[in-house]
Amino acid sequence: MEFLVRTENRLPNDTPADIRDQLRKGERERATELREAGVLRRLWRVPGRNATIGLYEAEDPAALHDAPVSLPMWKWMDVTVEALATHPQEKKG
Amino acid sequence: MEFLVRTENRLPNDTPADIRDQLRKGERERATELREAGVLRRLWRVPGRNATIGLYEAEDPAALHDAPVSLPMWKWMDVTVEALATHPQEKKG
Amino acid sequence: MEFLVRTENRLPNDTPADIRDQLRKGERERATELREAGVLRRLWRVPGRNATIGLYEAEDPAALHDAPVSLPMWKWMDVTVEALATHPQEKKG
Amino acid sequence: MEFLVRTENRLPNDTPADIRDQLRKGERERATELREAGVLRRLWRVPGRNATIGLYEAEDPAALHDAPVSLPMWKWMDVTVEALATHPQEKKG
Amino acid sequence: MEFLVRTENRLPNDTPADIRDQLRKGERERATELREAGVLRRLWRVPGRNATIGLYEAEDPAALHDAPVSLPMWKWMDVTVEALATHPQEKKG
Amino acid sequence: MEFLVRTENRLPNDTPADIRDQLRKGERERATELREAGVLRRLWRVPGRNATIGLYEAEDPAALHDAPVSLPMWKWMDVTVEALATHPQEKKG
Amino acid sequence: MEFLVRTENRLPNDTPADIRDQLRKGERERATELREAGVLRRLWRVPGRNATIGLYEAEDPAALHDAPVSLPMWKWMDVTVEALATHPQEKKG
Amino acid sequence: MEFLVRTENRLPNDTPADIRDQLRKGERERATELREAGVLRRLWRVPGRNATIGLYEAEDPAALHDAPVSLPMWKWMDVTVEALATHPQEKKG
Amino acid sequence: MEFLVRTENRLPNDTPADIRDQLRKGERERATELREAGVLRRLWRVPGRNATIGLYEAEDPAALHDAPVSLPMWKWMDVTVEALATHPQEKKG
Amino acid sequence: MEFLVRTENRLPNDTPADIRDQLRKGERERATELREAGVLRRLWRVPGRNATIGLYEAEDPAALHDAPVSLPMWKWMDVTVEALATHPQEKKG
Repeated sequence: MEFLVRTENRLPNDTPADIRDQLRKGERERATELREAGVLRRLWRVPGRNATIGLYEAEDPAALHDAPVSLPMWKWMDVTVEALATHPQEKKG
Repeated sequence: MEFLVRTENRLPNDTPADIRDQLRKGERERATELREAGVLRRLWRVPGRNATIGLYEAEDPAALHDAPVSLPMWKWMDVTVEALATHPQEKKG
Repeated sequence: MEFLVRTENRLPNDTPADIRDQLRKGERERATELREAGVLRRLWRVPGRNATIGLYEAEDPAALHDAPVSLPMWKWMDVTVEALATHPQEKKG
Repeated sequence: MEFLVRTENRLPNDTPADIRDQLRKGERERATELREAGVLRRLWRVPGRNATIGLYEAEDPAALHDAPVSLPMWKWMDVTVEALATHPQEKKG
Repeated sequence: MEFLVRTENRLPNDTPADIRDQLRKGERERATELREAGVLRRLWRVPGRNATIGLYEAEDPAALHDAPVSLPMWKWMDVTVEALATHPQEKKG
Repeated sequence: MEFLVRTENRLPNDTPADIRDQLRKGERERATELREAGVLRRLWRVPGRNATIGLYEAEDPAALHDAPVSLPMWKWMDVTVEALATHPQEKKG
Repeated sequence: MEFLVRTENRLPNDTPADIRDQLRKGERERATELREAGVLRRLWRVPGRNATIGLYEAEDPAALHDAPVSLPMWKWMDVTVEALATHPQEKKG
Repeated sequence: MEFLVRTENRLPNDTPADIRDQLRKGERERATELREAGVLRRLWRVPGRNATIGLYEAEDPAALHDAPVSLPMWKWMDVTVEALATHPQEKKG
Repeated sequence: MEFLVRTENRLPNDTPADIRDQLRKGERERATELREAGVLRRLWRVPGRNATIGLYEAEDPAALHDAPVSLPMWKWMDVTVEALATHPQEKKG
Repeated sequence: MEFLVRTENRLPNDTPADIRDQLRKGERERATELREAGVLRRLWRVPGRNATIGLYEAEDPAALHDAPVSLPMWKWMDVTVEALATHPQEKKG
C-alpha cells in the first residue's frame, strides 16, 4: 500500500557544520537504500522550505513507520503520514 | 491493519421520518454485517453529537474504504480515516 | 512540472441517478484522456471519502488549471493544488 | 468509561542516551502495569511520529488523568483526551 | 462527573414563527426538567450569538449524551462536549 | 460577571524541584485566597494535561485580569478568557 | 466595559430587493439608536467583505448581548464578541 | 497603497447559463475599468479553483472596499484583503 | 486610516528584573509619545494575557509599521495588524 | 511562472548586533541580485511584523526554491510559497 509522507526538518540552526554534513550524507545514503528497497518511490521538495513530500510503499502502517524513523534526521523531523487508497481507475489491469 | 474512522452525520433535518427510519434500520443491519465480518471492531458515540468513532480492521486502505461507503447513510456522512500502526508493545506474542 | 491535486466532491446528494451516472461516466472518460495526455500521472482515493489525491504534470500552473477544470464534476469539486519542486535526488540522471 | 488518548512525545533531542533509555524502560514498565490494571486497553503508533493513540478505561476523567500522568515521559508529552460514549449497538447484551 | 457543553443553534432563519415559538417553549421546559434532575447545573449565553455554554453532570458520557439529545432543538444544534476532571483542590472535604 | 478561564502550564521541565514545589505551594495558597474572595468559583483539570478550566467571577475584565496574573505560575501560563453572559433562564428569581 | 464585536452578514443573495432595503434601513436606524445610547462607540468595515468590526460599551456581557441581537439583520449575522480589559495606561486620570 | 485581495467565487452551480454568462461578461468589463483606473494592478488565478488573487492599489481601505464591491459577482464572492506595506528596498528612488 | 493592532508579548521569563523594568519603562514612554502624536488612539489588555489590542491611526501601512516597531519590546512581540475601512455611517458629517 | 512567497523571520533576538547587521547587509545585496536577475519582482512588508510578501518569477518550483534559499537569512525564515496561474485577462496581448 502507498503513503504520502510529509517531512519538515527542524534541525537547529546552530548545529555544527560537520555534524550537519554528516547527517545530510547519512540522509542521502539511507534514502538511496529505501529507493532500492522499493519503499521510497518518489520524493519532492516543498518549494522554499526545508521540507519534503514523499510517496512511499510499505506492507502496512507499522512497516511504513520504520522507513522515516530509519532516516538519520528523523528525530529532528516533523513527519505526517497519509494512507492512500488505490483508485479503481488504477486497479484495472 | 486497523483504522480509526470518524463519522459526522449530515442527513438533512427535513428528511421525512419514514426515510430516516429506513436509513437507520439499514445502518444497523449493515453495521451488524461489518461486525460479523470482523471489519467493524468497536464503535463509540461522540457525546452530544450525531457522530461516531469506530475502530475498523481491513486488509488495506482500499478495502477499508469499502466499509463506510457500504453504509446507507454514507453519502450524508463526513468521514475521516486515520491509519494506525501496531505498537511494538502489542506485537509481542 | 508536477502538482499534487486534492479534490473533494460536493455533488448534492439529491442529484438524480441518471445525471450522476452521466457525470461519473464523463469523469472516467476525461480522466482517461488526461492520463493518455500525460497530465494525470497517478490517482488515489482518500479512504472513506468521496475525494481524491492526484499527481499531475503540466507545463505551468495555468496549464495545470485547465486539467481539473475540464472534468465534468469540476464545478461541484473543492480543488486544492500544491506545486512540487523536483528533489535533487531525482534530478540526477 | 473509555477514553481515546493521544500523546506526542517532546523529549528534547539532546537528552543523554542513558536518561532516554531509562525513561523508555520506565515507560514500558508503567504501560505494562496499566495494561494489567485494565486501564490501558489498546495502544497504537501514529505512523511516522513519536506519538501514540491509546484506548483507556477508567472510572471517570479524574481517574483517567492519573494514568498518563503516571508515565515517566508524561512531563515531556503533549496529551489530548477524548471521552467516548458507549454506542447503543454495543450496549445490548 | 461534569461536562462543559457548547451549543450553536442552527435553526434555519425561515422557520415559521409558530414552530420556532413551540421549539423555544419546549426547549425551556426540557431545560427546566434537566435542572430539576440535577443534570443541567449552569447555563450561559455566548454573548452576541445564538449559542450557549452549559455545565452538566451525568454518570458517564453515554448518560450525558442523552441530555442535549433530549432538547427539542437538538437536531439543529452543533454540540461539543468536554469531559472535566475534578481538581484536587475541590476533592478535599 | 462570570468568565471561563483556561490555563496551560508551560513551566520548563528542567525547573529545579525546590522551585517547582515552591511555585505549586504558592499556587495553592493564592487559589485558596481567590476562592475565599469569591473570585475563583470552580476549578477543573483538563484530563491528561497540566491545564485547568476555571469559572471566575469579577466586576469587569480588568478586575478578572488581576486574578490569574496574581498566580505565581502566571508568567509560565498560557491563559485564555471567555466572558459569559447570564442566561435568561438563570436571571429569573 | 468595552467589547470588540465582529459581524459577518450572511443574508441570502436571493433575498428580494425590497426586504433587503427594509432590513438595511432598519439596520441604520437601530445603529443610530445604539450610538445615541452610548452602546455603539465605533464601527468599521472589514475591507472587501459584508462584515463589520464595532467597539461597543455595555454594563456586562448580558447587556452587550442585547445590542447586536436588536439589529434587524442579527439572525443572518455571524457575531463574535471579545471582552476588552481597560489598559492601566488609560485608567489614570 | 497596495492590497492583496483574494476572492473565492461561490456562485451556485444551478445558476442559469444566461445569467452566469451575463455575470461573467459584467465581471470582465468591470475588471477592465478597474485596470484602466489603476486600481486593479495584477490578477492571478488560484490554480484548480474558481478563485483569484489580485494586487490592487487604492487611497485607503474604504476606497479599496469599493473595488471588489463594484464587481457584479461580488455578492457571491468570499473576499479577503491584506494591506501591504511598501518595503524600504522599493521606497528608494 | 485606522488599524487594529494585536500584540502578544513573548519576552522570555528568565529576563533579568532590571532589564525587564527598563523595557517596561521604555514601553510606557514610547506609548505616551505615540499617543501624543495621534498614532496610538486606544489601548486595551486582552484579559488574562500579556497581550494588547490597540487602535492606531497612520497615513498608510508603511507608516503604521513604524509604530509598533518603535516599541522597545517589539522584537519580542508577535504583532498582527488589520486595516480598517471607515464605515459609511461614520463618514457623514 | 510567478509565485507568491511569504517569509517570517525567526532570527533569535539574542543574535549579536554585528552578526545581525552582517546578515541584513547580505540580505539586501542578495535581494538586489535577485531583482536584477528578474527573479524578485516585488517585495512588501507585512505591517507590524518582521515578515515579507514577495512576487517572484522563476522557470519552475525547483528554480523558485533556489531563490529564498540563497538569502543569508533563509535558515531562520519560515517560508511559504504559492504558485500563481496567469489569469486569462492578462494573457491576451
